Amino acid sequence: VVYRNAWMTVREDEVIRADGSTGIYGVVNKPDFALVLPLDRGGYHLVEQYRYPVRGRFWEFPQGSWASADAGGPLPPGDAAELARRELREETGLHAEHLRHLGRIPVAYGYSSQGCEIFVATGLTQGPPDREPSEADMRSRWVGADELDNLVRTGRLCDAVSLAALTLWERLARRG
Amino acid sequence: VVYRNAWMTVREDEVIRADGSTGIYGVVNKPDFALVLPLDRGGYHLVEQYRYPVRGRFWEFPQGSWASADAGGPLPPGDAAELARRELREETGLHAEHLRHLGRIPVAYGYSSQGCEIFVATGLTQGPPDREPSEADMRSRWVGADELDNLVRTGRLCDAVSLAALTLWERLARRG
Repeated sequence: VVYRNAWMTVREDEVIRADGSTGIYGVVNKPDFALVLPLDRGGYHLVEQYRYPVRGRFWEFPQGSWASADAGGPLPPGDAAELARRELREETGLHAEHLRHLGRIPVAYGYSSQGCEIFVATGLTQGPPDREPSEADMRSRWVGADELDNLVRTGRLCDAVSLAALTLWERLARRG
Repeated sequence: VVYRNAWMTVREDEVIRADGSTGIYGVVNKPDFALVLPLDRGGYHLVEQYRYPVRGRFWEFPQGSWASADAGGPLPPGDAAELARRELREETGLHAEHLRHLGRIPVAYGYSSQGCEIFVATGLTQGPPDREPSEADMRSRWVGADELDNLVRTGRLCDAVSLAALTLWERLARRG
């Protein structure tokens, strides 16, 4: 481990490649997180917040992780669903009656082992949000399908994992 | 800068949050990369390789960066297109007559400033691949739309940026 903070560790491994040559491989370890597509009236609930590394505010699907950088690897199934429900409730105030698991995708597997568990939430009931201090600037709102397309087209919803989650969901919806 | 190797730097910033509290923010800097959707006969050309951080082989769209971790921030437009052509040619042997830019998306903006420039390539001509030593295990092949859906559904194409690129392309194709 060559670097560690409360949210990530960076590890440097010595590796032997398929051709027998050796080298180093830097791997960023962060705990898995959950992302929720909250489906409602033919549209989606989104959140918007400031993302420091890219210096801007963007729309995305509710998402988050348990607060521990040491917990690497896949989350236990029940744990991932509980995390999804918690992030949805904290960030939007929505309670989901039904949660459906769409899959786990690696976020940046060229240099990280982190994965994201993707869920679709339906049967939504509105309550008050309960955001963490670091999410004080967050807002949430419902958008219809056309407005979602517009946010994607104009780059205001550009988060790779949110866009990837749409691909998974739209393929599943097409299959019925 | 708290860590550096040939492909990434990790920076630790002191930040002041919207509520006035202070803290640290770890940011992974890697150079932008380019990803290409090579469209052909109603399907796509894909590559498959071993991804060390997740210990497995997966299908994805051809992608890569110039070899320099110091070059952060967006690539100049012509540079991004040249990189896309090079990665496509090296990884698949395909030469693209036409290249269309779909957008730049942040890969993991919760902790990284890295972006990916996404292109669609058409008018393809097959030549020999010219892979880097670290890509010696790579293979490429054409898949039809149904087989692509099957690779996505079964998790054998799960790269977040490849899935995100599909969302951008399918929305554009729908608009015509």
